[in-house]
Amino acid sequence: MKNEISIGLLGLGTVGSGVATILQQHQQDLHHKLGVPVSIKKVLIKNENKERFSTLDPSVFTTNAQEILNDPSIDIIVEVMGGIEEAKQAIEHALRAGKQVVTANKDVMAEYGHELLKLADAKKCDLFYEASVAGGIPIIRTLEDGLASDRISSLMGIVNGTTNFILTKMKQENMSYEVALAEATRLGYAEADPSADVDGVDAARKMVILSSLAFSTEVHLSDVLVRGMKEIRDGDMDLAEGFGYTMKMVGSSKKNQDGIEVAVEPVFLANSHLLASVNNEFNAVYIYGDAVGETMLYGPGAGSLPTATSVVSDIIAACRNLLLEVNGKRLHAAQHDRVIKSANHRYAKYFHRLLVKDEVGVLSNLTAIYSNHNASLQSVKQHPAGNEGMAEIILLTHSISRQQHLDVIEDLKDIASVISHYRIEGDESA
Amino acid sequence: MKNEISIGLLGLGTVGSGVATILQQHQQDLHHKLGVPVSIKKVLIKNENKERFSTLDPSVFTTNAQEILNDPSIDIIVEVMGGIEEAKQAIEHALRAGKQVVTANKDVMAEYGHELLKLADAKKCDLFYEASVAGGIPIIRTLEDGLASDRISSLMGIVNGTTNFILTKMKQENMSYEVALAEATRLGYAEADPSADVDGVDAARKMVILSSLAFSTEVHLSDVLVRGMKEIRDGDMDLAEGFGYTMKMVGSSKKNQDGIEVAVEPVFLANSHLLASVNNEFNAVYIYGDAVGETMLYGPGAGSLPTATSVVSDIIAACRNLLLEVNGKRLHAAQHDRVIKSANHRYAKYFHRLLVKDEVGVLSNLTAIYSNHNASLQSVKQHPAGNEGMAEIILLTHSISRQQHLDVIEDLKDIASVISHYRIEGDESA
Repeated sequence: MKNEISIGLLGLGTVGSGVATILQQHQQDLHHKLGVPVSIKKVLIKNENKERFSTLDPSVFTTNAQEILNDPSIDIIVEVMGGIEEAKQAIEHALRAGKQVVTANKDVMAEYGHELLKLADAKKCDLFYEASVAGGIPIIRTLEDGLASDRISSLMGIVNGTTNFILTKMKQENMSYEVALAEATRLGYAEADPSADVDGVDAARKMVILSSLAFSTEVHLSDVLVRGMKEIRDGDMDLAEGFGYTMKMVGSSKKNQDGIEVAVEPVFLANSHLLASVNNEFNAVYIYGDAVGETMLYGPGAGSLPTATSVVSDIIAACRNLLLEVNGKRLHAAQHDRVIKSANHRYAKYFHRLLVKDEVGVLSNLTAIYSNHNASLQSVKQHPAGNEGMAEIILLTHSISRQQHLDVIEDLKDIASVISHYRIEGDESA
Repeated sequence: MKNEISIGLLGLGTVGSGVATILQQHQQDLHHKLGVPVSIKKVLIKNENKERFSTLDPSVFTTNAQEILNDPSIDIIVEVMGGIEEAKQAIEHALRAGKQVVTANKDVMAEYGHELLKLADAKKCDLFYEASVAGGIPIIRTLEDGLASDRISSLMGIVNGTTNFILTKMKQENMSYEVALAEATRLGYAEADPSADVDGVDAARKMVILSSLAFSTEVHLSDVLVRGMKEIRDGDMDLAEGFGYTMKMVGSSKKNQDGIEVAVEPVFLANSHLLASVNNEFNAVYIYGDAVGETMLYGPGAGSLPTATSVVSDIIAACRNLLLEVNGKRLHAAQHDRVIKSANHRYAKYFHRLLVKDEVGVLSNLTAIYSNHNASLQSVKQHPAGNEGMAEIILLTHSISRQQHLDVIEDLKDIASVISHYRIEGDESA
């Protein structure tokens, strides 16, 4: 049995310094728990001259990744450098060298996860990635272990803290999108270029990782239907509230006999649904299992220490496997054939907001379009629009397929201007 | 390596039949996941003549526990028989015989958990008990593995589905306690004798298990401050609502430098707290970790299939350990010395509801009592009571210790009748 475990840390940014801090603070605990000391042997940094608030001995720093990846005394590679290609190559290199790997990199796992997990299997190495989705929430472990005996039928999650923070501020403090985004940037919840967050791509990557695991199949980013926050129009949030809904960016993934459908988009979520109460930068994932029914995990989606906590949990799991000499023996569910359905098959209630000329017969012309597509309506509300001679019409449908919804929207464009439209979620009557 | 795994099932009640169902439905999946077949070899039943809706071959049934416990071909004992002494003896017997044990028995784990876990360690056997707390929620695994790298500072949970169901019905449908309890009984959420639930003892047992694990120490049932639902008076729920709170039965457990304090009681929970939205028979546990911050797990607290899912997850973990020959090598946190604090040291805001004679000077006499105990008040409201010449007074304190609260209540009794009093939780200004 090994008498010490050495870690090579690739990256000393927000998450990397959190990992270093936790490992140092818990050194004694870890030694006690594992029976052997665990230490950081080398750390990859980008810039030698940058001042660091880390208590690591500067002799561990290197700017050369190969020096870490090729060090035979290093047992576990912790990849927290970010980026895609370079990080992917480092993980690949580490696995080929028979090292255990822990990564927090959702971009790499969404893009190359299937390939890398297969390589890890072949090399009998651990590849853990708890921190790649919903930073402080043990969602990967829960899907892998906790619900190992259940068949998961769907997932629904708020998996992007930036957009959830912005939507919360817009709702609770009546901020405009721009002001809320500026506030998110100021607090460090949004990056300088927030497009991956607000366009839904970040959430889509996380849904790729979660769906692949939950349904034991390969889901790719191109499989995900994505609508970003830019679809939200002034007044939409108030309208949502008026009907008893909360606007949330929701990632959802459903499995049925025909296949899997995955979407990320702003939706109207029923206030009575627990996810509607998930506010600010918090994340939460709702899991529907055949046997267990509904469960939800809630917690911080990002941040240095929460994410680092997940990384360290993975490091501990890898250490334990090293000591027991059982790395790479993770149980795998049978991989199912890839059957991805277009999200257009999915049934839901929809909210449509239209601007029309306020003239005789317009309502009957509108509703005729719904009838033509067999889409039945739950409610219709009309009120004068700001522009003279125009009216705003709000229509809520009963449950229809996304295809019906799209067909209706297409036909509506002939006689109305479509201000906005949303799927409705969590409504028991849906 | 073993080429098959045999299970002995002690009990075929609600949970036991769920376990049998899941194991049979997932037989192929399990074989694939583990590489060997897993089967139920013997089942302990109480009554040979009872009709059973199970597809198990009747030849596996026995009414003699010894026949199962002494069968050397049985690897894993699954204890779902309920009760305390007999179940404890069966678990002890199984561990001494070197068998792995999975139990769903919170009563045994709350009473004898420390002793049994030590025995399991000594015998290098697994003793898993995920299903003993919050049926379908992987809370034990999360505390053990997921947050292994974090220091937990407090736990707060709705861990009794019966009382949560009753309180939800009382709030949402204005049912009386009696009608809500009858409804809970009708739906199978409450037992014929509901006292363990409504008196808070069931929740207290679960808090004993969770607190012992979270804080790596021995917590006993007698350490828990328990107040039951009988403390709730007519009108209290409406008053809670008026102040922006929801009445919930909450188990809470805090650790600070002086020790650990554990309580189960009806509290006023701020509506903005996520636990306030946990309704009906659902359970949820909120965990505060030093590094991770706030996380919450939500799901069904009981029920045949949810609880059985947790049992089967434990069975899978035990099977995997059997195949890897690493049973009983679970990591343990350093056990800390037992330092239990009286919950009287804990600070919180309090709600006091009093009935007084409506006469000159009464308010100043009342508030003088608070001043005498250095308890400052946040708000005072007075309104006429139903009885002539009497007034009802509602006082909300700023943060005070429970001891101050108790001292104030004691002194108040000289000049008022104390209708009810509650701790306030989840209020950010607390």
